[in-house]
Amino acid sequence: MNEPRIVRVALLGAGSVGSQVARLLLEQADTFAQRAGARLELVGIAVRDPKRKRDTDLPAELFTDDAETLILQADFVIELMGGIEPARTLITQALESGADVVTANKALLANHGPELFALAERVGAQLHYEAAVAGAIPILRPLRENLAGDRIERVLGIVNGTTNYILDRMHTKGDSFEESLRIATELGYAEADPTADIEGFDAQHKAAILASIAFHTNVKLEDVYCEGITGVSIDQINDAKRAGFVVKLLAICERAVEASGTESVSARVYPALVPESHPLASVHGGNNAVFVESAAAGSLMFYGAGAGGVETASAVLGDLVTAARRHVLGGPGLGESMDANLPHRPISEVDTRFQIALAVTDEPGALAKIATTFAEHAVSIATLEQTNDGDRASLVIVTHRATEGALQALVAALESSSAIHEVQGVLRVEGSN
Amino acid sequence: MNEPRIVRVALLGAGSVGSQVARLLLEQADTFAQRAGARLELVGIAVRDPKRKRDTDLPAELFTDDAETLILQADFVIELMGGIEPARTLITQALESGADVVTANKALLANHGPELFALAERVGAQLHYEAAVAGAIPILRPLRENLAGDRIERVLGIVNGTTNYILDRMHTKGDSFEESLRIATELGYAEADPTADIEGFDAQHKAAILASIAFHTNVKLEDVYCEGITGVSIDQINDAKRAGFVVKLLAICERAVEASGTESVSARVYPALVPESHPLASVHGGNNAVFVESAAAGSLMFYGAGAGGVETASAVLGDLVTAARRHVLGGPGLGESMDANLPHRPISEVDTRFQIALAVTDEPGALAKIATTFAEHAVSIATLEQTNDGDRASLVIVTHRATEGALQALVAALESSSAIHEVQGVLRVEGSN
Ligand SMILES: NC(=O)c1ccc[n+]([C@@H]2O[C@H](COP(=O)([O-])OP(=O)(O)OC[C@H]3O[C@@H](n4cnc5c(N)ncnc54)[C@H](OP(=O)(O)O)[C@@H]3O)[C@@H](O)[C@H]2O)c1
Ligand SMILES: NC(=O)c1ccc[n+]([C@@H]2O[C@H](COP(=O)([O-])OP(=O)(O)OC[C@H]3O[C@@H](n4cnc5c(N)ncnc54)[C@H](OP(=O)(O)O)[C@@H]3O)[C@@H](O)[C@H]2O)c1
Repeated sequence: MNEPRIVRVALLGAGSVGSQVARLLLEQADTFAQRAGARLELVGIAVRDPKRKRDTDLPAELFTDDAETLILQADFVIELMGGIEPARTLITQALESGADVVTANKALLANHGPELFALAERVGAQLHYEAAVAGAIPILRPLRENLAGDRIERVLGIVNGTTNYILDRMHTKGDSFEESLRIATELGYAEADPTADIEGFDAQHKAAILASIAFHTNVKLEDVYCEGITGVSIDQINDAKRAGFVVKLLAICERAVEASGTESVSARVYPALVPESHPLASVHGGNNAVFVESAAAGSLMFYGAGAGGVETASAVLGDLVTAARRHVLGGPGLGESMDANLPHRPISEVDTRFQIALAVTDEPGALAKIATTFAEHAVSIATLEQTNDGDRASLVIVTHRATEGALQALVAALESSSAIHEVQGVLRVEGSN
Repeated sequence: MNEPRIVRVALLGAGSVGSQVARLLLEQADTFAQRAGARLELVGIAVRDPKRKRDTDLPAELFTDDAETLILQADFVIELMGGIEPARTLITQALESGADVVTANKALLANHGPELFALAERVGAQLHYEAAVAGAIPILRPLRENLAGDRIERVLGIVNGTTNYILDRMHTKGDSFEESLRIATELGYAEADPTADIEGFDAQHKAAILASIAFHTNVKLEDVYCEGITGVSIDQINDAKRAGFVVKLLAICERAVEASGTESVSARVYPALVPESHPLASVHGGNNAVFVESAAAGSLMFYGAGAGGVETASAVLGDLVTAARRHVLGGPGLGESMDANLPHRPISEVDTRFQIALAVTDEPGALAKIATTFAEHAVSIATLEQTNDGDRASLVIVTHRATEGALQALVAALESSSAIHEVQGVLRVEGSN
């Protein structure tokens, strides 16, 4: 038997995101080993205070406050400390020591991306940072790879959940900015110090990263114009609403043509009116979405949770597993991993909800009979609507979840029931519980 | 000076998709060369009839009917002929000759994916097929790479534009299935023979591909349960509508747990009710969308045009440029390409629309004065709403596009105008023209 290959992973930071990454690395070790072609062994976790009591159940012996020594033992370094230093120095050391790096650090990338990319290229290491923009939503890889053969014209992103929550609340509930911020803080959508979010700085970092990738151009943080939402009044939101618009804090990255005919890039962040019919207008609460316009593909939108510890961990681990697979396989190939090999579940065992339309006879007690037939087949009724069209009564029933097998038996019984004239149609219901 | 590297590309098929791929390869040659690190040279186009007059302006000397000879001259083969044979044999020959392959052929992959993946892996070649599902919408790469560290629970896809157009029309206009199909055919949303679309077979192919990637399991086409939309009546759609649902043809890929505790996969296609509030419910017309539920990332949605020659060409070229870059660079690295190096456009030169709220004095002719001030600054008014609150009049004006510079000058002039009490607020408008 072959020795299983091992990829050594060092984690820097065990906060909201890092603790989830560590937990999943330990819990999903077998799955990740199959997908990556090597075991991803967590060799240590560097934090400020290794002795501190933590919510998550991570082995105490993994913790250290010596990040510099830890990275020397790793093939992969995951940086989830945040901030510029010591993250910048540690990532630099990791790359120089030949390790591949995954990070979610938007501040670092927006300020020092180019020097880190250049270093990674020089030493032939991978540097991934999908989690830095819009958390779990796949956006950097689609822009960089799926749209590599297209010409991106514009990116409009709702990339900050805190401000989207506040603006959405102002729009839907009519609360003032101050009141909405207060509630956002109470519910955990805003941090104790919300400055970076409400002043637009977080979105500004993300705009710099998005614009750089979309336009294959190094867009500097200081070239991203930035206005936050502290000046948005409830009157402005109501004016916008009356005119058919919704106010959103947008990160906008645009290709423009100068008077001279040469192209340029504009990146900017500010609260803006968006038509109600635009897909971005229906992004509610703390969600994020990125809308991309490109010459060939047309309009695309990517939607999901923009932040949160476990959501962001998903993006970090996606980078890690993909990069580890590439590290192990070497060369260009990325083959299909079909190792889970799950069995097939036949349609008869699938359970969903159903909408059933029935033409009912005018027999007395028909409804009771029908309800009994449903009960006998263990299919329970969620809603029932009766309509009378002349002397014919119709029932439209939406059921709770039932298996396809139970449904087929029910339909057969209904078809032979004297209470029923005709089973007019059956459709399944998806996307609700 | 270094000789520029060259990657030789053979194109099989020049129909709706292939002709667009060829056009863009020629038109965007310089851009693609920068991004891929090598010139992508189109060495030939294999078609059935090389002499046939074609709409697009492609060099006649590129055309051939000898696909087998053509592929031997190529580093990359792009297969856009469709159907099982000769596509299957040609792709096999291409891989065996050491070429990397990009295809959009869902029928071939759903039927013969595993043998082709195994061959590609054996010979160490790349096989990409992002365009096979949902056209230009990035979905396979996000599922495979971004979610590689997550546990996908369910994929719900609207992956066929023809049927979505028909069902959307039935829902919004109340037209019958037959009438909606007739109009879809007239408008080019449905092919002359619509069987593959309306019977769900096209979606069935895509469900097999989606499920295989989402669950790392080879899901066979014949294991995908399939019902089309020919049996959906306008009554059912109206019943659903009254109950707050929209009917969509869904490709559903689900992880399930058997009674024994082992996991299994269900893949199926059928028309289903979706709650109006579900993001899939607002996918209108011929658009596609894929909704993904996963353990860590939560709910994600990917939205865009699912088909169309140029849209699908975007996905094909994304695969080609990305794969060529990997081919050229070798090794794992995918560094950032920052070669476009576009200049920065300052905010003062950006033009957008604006919403401006003004408190107006009761001076006679105030409105005329204000309109003149706008005209003097070449900012034209799109809509104007006047509200009177007691003796104070307010104006909310939405402008046509104007530069930030023009706006700033306008606001300064308004602020010093005797017609105006106060400029109450200015917000930009995005996402509309
Ligand atoms: N949270 C999100 O939803 C989210 C979303 C997208 C991206 N991100 C990015 O992900 C990164 C991590 O965010 P987070 O929310 O997980 O941060 P966090 O909760 O503040 O955790 C930071 C972690 O790093 C450790 N750390 C900080 N400075 C250190 C130092 N000098 N030496 C050693 N360890 C140090 C801390 O150690 P102690 O535990 O000992 O204090 C802590 O474990 C940031 O770059 C952030 O921008 C976060
Ligand atoms: N159209 C879309 O929107 C779309 C979207 C997603 C995926 N796709 C997939 O993309 C592929 C191409 O679709 P398409 O719409 O471009 O097809 P198409 O318009 O029917 O074009 C097919 C092309 O292949 C050539 N061809 C067919 N059989 C051949 C043979 N035996 N030998 C040599 N050449 C042959 C044809 O040659 P002639 O020109 O001489 O007839 C034609 O140029 C299919 O797999 C399809 O499923 C299409």
